[in-house]
Amino acid sequence: MKKRIVITGMGFGGIRAARVLAGKGHDVVLVDRNNYHLFQPLLYQVATAGLEQESIAHSVRAMARKWPGTRFHLSEVTGVDFAARGIRTDTGQIPYDYLVIGAGSVTNFFGLDSVERHSFDLKELTDAETLRNHILTAFERAVNEPDPARQRALMTFVIVGGGPTGVEFAGALIELVHFVLAKDYPELSTNAARVVLVEATARLLAAMPETQGSYTLKKLRSMSVEVLLNARVVDAGPERVIMHDGAVIPAHTLFWSAGVKAAPLAATLETSQKGGGRIPVEPDLSLPGHPEVFVIGDMAYLEQDGSALPMTAPVAMQMGIHAGRVIIAREAGKTLPPFRYIDKGSMATIGRNAAVASAFGMNFRGYSAWLVWLLLHLYYLIGFRNRIVVMLNWVWYYWFHERQVRLITRREERQD
Amino acid sequence: MKKRIVITGMGFGGIRAARVLAGKGHDVVLVDRNNYHLFQPLLYQVATAGLEQESIAHSVRAMARKWPGTRFHLSEVTGVDFAARGIRTDTGQIPYDYLVIGAGSVTNFFGLDSVERHSFDLKELTDAETLRNHILTAFERAVNEPDPARQRALMTFVIVGGGPTGVEFAGALIELVHFVLAKDYPELSTNAARVVLVEATARLLAAMPETQGSYTLKKLRSMSVEVLLNARVVDAGPERVIMHDGAVIPAHTLFWSAGVKAAPLAATLETSQKGGGRIPVEPDLSLPGHPEVFVIGDMAYLEQDGSALPMTAPVAMQMGIHAGRVIIAREAGKTLPPFRYIDKGSMATIGRNAAVASAFGMNFRGYSAWLVWLLLHLYYLIGFRNRIVVMLNWVWYYWFHERQVRLITRREERQD
Repeated sequence: MKKRIVITGMGFGGIRAARVLAGKGHDVVLVDRNNYHLFQPLLYQVATAGLEQESIAHSVRAMARKWPGTRFHLSEVTGVDFAARGIRTDTGQIPYDYLVIGAGSVTNFFGLDSVERHSFDLKELTDAETLRNHILTAFERAVNEPDPARQRALMTFVIVGGGPTGVEFAGALIELVHFVLAKDYPELSTNAARVVLVEATARLLAAMPETQGSYTLKKLRSMSVEVLLNARVVDAGPERVIMHDGAVIPAHTLFWSAGVKAAPLAATLETSQKGGGRIPVEPDLSLPGHPEVFVIGDMAYLEQDGSALPMTAPVAMQMGIHAGRVIIAREAGKTLPPFRYIDKGSMATIGRNAAVASAFGMNFRGYSAWLVWLLLHLYYLIGFRNRIVVMLNWVWYYWFHERQVRLITRREERQD
Repeated sequence: MKKRIVITGMGFGGIRAARVLAGKGHDVVLVDRNNYHLFQPLLYQVATAGLEQESIAHSVRAMARKWPGTRFHLSEVTGVDFAARGIRTDTGQIPYDYLVIGAGSVTNFFGLDSVERHSFDLKELTDAETLRNHILTAFERAVNEPDPARQRALMTFVIVGGGPTGVEFAGALIELVHFVLAKDYPELSTNAARVVLVEATARLLAAMPETQGSYTLKKLRSMSVEVLLNARVVDAGPERVIMHDGAVIPAHTLFWSAGVKAAPLAATLETSQKGGGRIPVEPDLSLPGHPEVFVIGDMAYLEQDGSALPMTAPVAMQMGIHAGRVIIAREAGKTLPPFRYIDKGSMATIGRNAAVASAFGMNFRGYSAWLVWLLLHLYYLIGFRNRIVVMLNWVWYYWFHERQVRLITRREERQD
């Protein structure tokens, strides 16, 4: 029998679920508050003027064209009515027989209000454009700043969180300053610019083997990123960052990538919540007591071999595919074995010719890892034209040390 | 002797003046409120989801790197102190020995306040992104609109002004609807969408020969654009447009390209002003009584062979080059013959394989004119990488009928 399957959230998990379920004789309704799928792992390159924002987003309707039996609704989901089997959205209620929820995550500031107020993060496309505009505007303001201390603060960037996002952003930012802005601003001594990476634990890239973390640390320091380990940011103002030991870093830009938590939708579902507001799911990814509702990706909490699965894109993708298959199997009167995440490894790029990758018990570093990183990101990016544009930008940057998108597209509204 | 030459406005005229004056032993200061040169003639393609906004903008600092002796100031010019020889900006006063003013033009609504409030125009990069978001959001809203009349209004676009901008936007918009959105929105009858082009005179493209106007009219009508000649829009609301004869067009989008006037800076200069607030200049483009100040481009009023030069990019470019040369000549103790605009022709593209071009007394139409239009726009676009990205988009659209940038990047703030 034809079922109505609603998938909310067109992130990595949602589009995989849609792909599995399309053309299987069901009515598949895709819901997102944006009309595009966003390739979040490259947001930091938009923020550092390396890519145009449009090149890492792809129209959901363009994808849905190729998926028979799917429809798209541009709506923000505000809640779920489990009894009536319908999701509540800002454009009305949408009924479902099956529901797949993959609303993703938001930045977790762990209750540090002043930090939240004065820092930037990278979750949405506009965040990246806003941060790029802010970085470039800071240099423009530095040109006109007579006070050397304030000038240096304008060129000081504090990045919190030594995970992949923090590491990749720090590397891309210091390269932007040294390779590109140094030539753009001959009137500034850009050597005085500071990129400070703050990590609360004793090492970088905690999800990867120790050797990868120490290579990354060495590499970043050789690029003149100041890495502070066992350090925490506890307070912030518009022009300064306060450390756990009371130290003050005069800085005009604070970037926060020290944690994520489940999207606010999770809290409206009236289910139990685990660390980071995540929703515990059954081994088939369904919601306890609601076998017709599945939660996937960053919103889902599932333990495997004694520890919770990480909030990463590969987990979301595999969960999306699994949820889709469970629905198809159930409609065919079959059952599937429980979800099991297959860890294909993880990677982070540090800079030009330098990345770390760990897969199948092997560790790659340097040029080979960097090349694998490039190819895998191009592979997972959606849209053939996007791949060409991104590759073009990378080649350009590699050959000419040029990042073309150093445009200030909007005046800053932020008062500081 | 080394002189300090300030050029305000990095439009078509300003960058040509800068290019002429760079490396001639003078101190050249470039001032603009944006950090990029904008290729305005392609804004309509950004608005119709054909190009990413970054591809038609180019960093001024990237250009200035190649221009010896130039510096850039990101500032908004608020006035000129002729006596003290300095321009007033939001980041302080900048002194000059020579000043070249090319602040361009803004949209002229001719005092129609309701029209200004409810219409879109295309002068700035953000205008194009805002308009694209608005067009795509209108279709998303149409999907959820139960009232057929309101649904049709959401898909009705009124374009005022039958000049090149109006014609090009109308053609690109109807193609977006018929070739792209028709496939994106299977749930809508996009054939009901209306693109209405309103022109106050009896013909389109008044600056070109009559035959070109009538070809354009026929072509647009064959593409199902509704062209209303001898018609004027006199009033507007959020959901309707009122014509001169009282007729009401229910329309969610009104686009205004019926006129331009000199940028507000012109009014602050306390000089006489001509039609459209333009500033009359001497035959050498200098300001009467101020031989060290030049006004170029859309802000300048100069008659040639009995009629005022048009407010177009080619005029601005030639004026920019001339102003630069006058300064160099004067410093060398020479004089140049007065400025004379050489009309190399004009062109407008209507749609796929269809354009009109008039040059050297000859008129081209259709495929050949379209090809010339493409090549000339690529040629004048600044930045090699931009050219590749734009060409890639055009090839993509030509082969696959796909416009990739149909992203709603910002929620609408406009209340209606």
